[in-house]
Amino acid sequence: MNAPHEVSLVADDARRSALLAGLAKILPDAALLWKPEDTVPYECDGLAAYRQVPMAVALPDNEDQVCAILRLCHSLQVPVVPRGAGTSLSGGAMPIATGLVLSLAKFKRIVSVDVRSRTAVVQPGVRNLAISEAAAQYNLYYAPDPSSQIACTIGGNVSENSGGVHCLKYGLTVHNVLRVRAVTMEGDVVEFGSEAPDAPGLDLLAAVIGSEGMLAVVTEVSVKLIPKPQLAQVIMASFDDVAKGGNAVADVIGAGIIPAGLEMMDKPATAAVEEFVRAGYDLDAAAILLCESDGTPEEVAEEVERMSEVLRASGASRIQVSQSEPERLRFWSGRKNAFPAAGRISPDYYCMDGTIPRKHIGTLLKRIEEMERKYGLRCMNVFHAGDGNMHPLILFDGADQDEWHRAELFGSDILESCVELGGTVTGEHGVGVEKLNSMCVQFSAQERDLFFGVKAAFDPARLLNPDKAIPTLARCAEYGRMHVKRGLLPHPDLPRF
Amino acid sequence: MNAPHEVSLVADDARRSALLAGLAKILPDAALLWKPEDTVPYECDGLAAYRQVPMAVALPDNEDQVCAILRLCHSLQVPVVPRGAGTSLSGGAMPIATGLVLSLAKFKRIVSVDVRSRTAVVQPGVRNLAISEAAAQYNLYYAPDPSSQIACTIGGNVSENSGGVHCLKYGLTVHNVLRVRAVTMEGDVVEFGSEAPDAPGLDLLAAVIGSEGMLAVVTEVSVKLIPKPQLAQVIMASFDDVAKGGNAVADVIGAGIIPAGLEMMDKPATAAVEEFVRAGYDLDAAAILLCESDGTPEEVAEEVERMSEVLRASGASRIQVSQSEPERLRFWSGRKNAFPAAGRISPDYYCMDGTIPRKHIGTLLKRIEEMERKYGLRCMNVFHAGDGNMHPLILFDGADQDEWHRAELFGSDILESCVELGGTVTGEHGVGVEKLNSMCVQFSAQERDLFFGVKAAFDPARLLNPDKAIPTLARCAEYGRMHVKRGLLPHPDLPRF
Repeated sequence: MNAPHEVSLVADDARRSALLAGLAKILPDAALLWKPEDTVPYECDGLAAYRQVPMAVALPDNEDQVCAILRLCHSLQVPVVPRGAGTSLSGGAMPIATGLVLSLAKFKRIVSVDVRSRTAVVQPGVRNLAISEAAAQYNLYYAPDPSSQIACTIGGNVSENSGGVHCLKYGLTVHNVLRVRAVTMEGDVVEFGSEAPDAPGLDLLAAVIGSEGMLAVVTEVSVKLIPKPQLAQVIMASFDDVAKGGNAVADVIGAGIIPAGLEMMDKPATAAVEEFVRAGYDLDAAAILLCESDGTPEEVAEEVERMSEVLRASGASRIQVSQSEPERLRFWSGRKNAFPAAGRISPDYYCMDGTIPRKHIGTLLKRIEEMERKYGLRCMNVFHAGDGNMHPLILFDGADQDEWHRAELFGSDILESCVELGGTVTGEHGVGVEKLNSMCVQFSAQERDLFFGVKAAFDPARLLNPDKAIPTLARCAEYGRMHVKRGLLPHPDLPRF
Repeated sequence: MNAPHEVSLVADDARRSALLAGLAKILPDAALLWKPEDTVPYECDGLAAYRQVPMAVALPDNEDQVCAILRLCHSLQVPVVPRGAGTSLSGGAMPIATGLVLSLAKFKRIVSVDVRSRTAVVQPGVRNLAISEAAAQYNLYYAPDPSSQIACTIGGNVSENSGGVHCLKYGLTVHNVLRVRAVTMEGDVVEFGSEAPDAPGLDLLAAVIGSEGMLAVVTEVSVKLIPKPQLAQVIMASFDDVAKGGNAVADVIGAGIIPAGLEMMDKPATAAVEEFVRAGYDLDAAAILLCESDGTPEEVAEEVERMSEVLRASGASRIQVSQSEPERLRFWSGRKNAFPAAGRISPDYYCMDGTIPRKHIGTLLKRIEEMERKYGLRCMNVFHAGDGNMHPLILFDGADQDEWHRAELFGSDILESCVELGGTVTGEHGVGVEKLNSMCVQFSAQERDLFFGVKAAFDPARLLNPDKAIPTLARCAEYGRMHVKRGLLPHPDLPRF
């Protein structure tokens, strides 16, 4: 079956004219971009290695416009890629050459904050951090906090089911969103979930959350707000060996403690970060753990003491506890700026997103050390240790074809190890275009069929963000052949710089 | 379109023979029931007003048998109704005359309890309470606790997304289940969710939870276990007016307290219950609230004090706090036995399951008092007040046609009030066969289409628990005509005794 966007260029020209003419009736001039100089900035998201200039970009500012745009595209069979802030790390918002990018950037209104029910209703273009800022006056906040929270928007968070350093204790986006209002590819407004505890009917809220823009275009989101803890303190624990630090993570959780955050960075990561943001990290340590506790002052004091005991027993060589809110934020600022820091010390970096059972963190880190020698490339490790969600950053120079090839093999090797240790090849960054092949390994043909079936229920014409997130049968068959031939997980679609 | 089970009786006879012959090859004799005296006990679930003897009942004890049975039924186009303990209150497990009942009663194994990850893997026929009993030695428990928890099974809980008195603080089934393994109508084994924080692919776990057996047959469930609180105490607060009690509920939540349980019973309910279980309720009160606090002794002491203050300010005439674990359990035993108690004082009762925003509880209770006079029938009110999930029990004698008719109008009137006050016509008991018409009011045609689309992705032949939970377009059209004609919410399918 050919996807509708794989038609000939002749037809495309006619469709392009019809599309632009139709959009001009729906949107004011300033909200419709079609000249190359205007559309080029939309050619990629945070995974810059995949680039494609779209036919046009629409910037509606109300739901009626979204409905009209989708109806128009549906009638013209034009594929649509919804876009939030474009911070996706897996190419989820990568445009299609013959398609429209539908930006929700103008949906910036915080519709309401209800203190009694501890909820907020927001438009999809509201930045993640802006929700907590609006709720701060009531001493409430929105818990999921991706590292990109200054820039990323709640619509994108919903599409990718974003996490963050606090999701170990407070959950992912799916645990903090109560209701989503959205428009289907055919232009119908639908709602999923409710602010009541249990709505009748099939619960499709979770299916829409994390669906990477394939099911419907989000136009409004109701989120949970939670009371700001009276106090939060973060422990910085140093280890003289990465495996010891990794094992300490399992020890903390195994002791029955669920820290508000539990992150790990190795020496290459702290060194790169420290130069950049002066977070106050222990630069002598082979690895540091950041362990946050929040609650009442009594609860925090007790938990910090218990965690410190466990960390010492696990071999921490030094323990430092933040003594003020500015110091706590400084400790976190390093973690949150680790990716940009990698960009400062290497021409290119390739960020992996595997998950493994916590008990194997030490093992994987040791293996990565060996791989660094094997491939002659450096790797920074920064990750959500509490969740076992690893972000090895392989540093390389994309201009050097050989380095690039070695980086590719290095990445494949890490992912193979994740799977072998009982984990998955992607945690929180989404599948997008980047990890389509890995999905062939993760899911059976029957399970992938169910995904396509649900996709078809929402979008039978396959026009909404098509060819993302779920690999076709043909692709998986091809991948299976390659896998057998090469004897390792290949990445034929890996970024080419 | 005719559903496959609406074919002629002649064809049914041939299919019946083929089905029984095929099942005899899959199951031992004792696991296959087909004689009327054996199949009659399966004619209904907890909504006894709807009865239908099935063609046969299969009792497999392993997943291979489930796959084989479903493949057989799929090839013969025999509809299948999965069944747990049969405690559903909405007819979700009501058989089909030309269909098979697939009982999971023999799937009773607790596969594992993992203390480090605080999870348990259980088969669907394990009773809700049995999970907590198995985890008790590790000081852990499974939080959702429907009133039927002694009898109901986790497979049924998953199918209905069951709640319970503690779900205000600890969530519904959907918040406490990590992974479901299931078999599709075509006999394929599929898994949803994972024990890791976020699995790639569409998140269909929540869609399967609460799908009332329409998507797949559950064969294994991974649940979260949580640490047993060190202490729990329950406040019994008396009110001399039901509306005051109702308003106190909103006041407690509005004060920023999330009690472990927050339930309300009115005088007719406490009177019926007290005679039956001697829970120690204040029989002079017009209504009582049960407000539970759990946590460390310090946390409980502080919360009990804060809740008591709010309750007094809201007009509580008397406040009593449980002073021992047996006393706490005694207070709850009355609430958990309220439905059987109703059965003792009235030949029949009709249990409603509407939800309303908490702030309107007092208003609805006042309206119900007026309706009692209008319809000349008594009504007991017992409900999950914290969630705004009301369970008015209309007492009547089904042998008296006029009483039955008045009960029907009374019920419709309550549901209309729920909708008018911004609520829903069903909270936690499921749609089943009972509330199909109400679904026409709750969801748009587009939303119902999406439900059918997802159903079709799992079960294109519409053989798995067909005609439950989602009303067809034709049914809703018919319902719309009746609604206009009668000027109120009718219940053409209401139980006939």
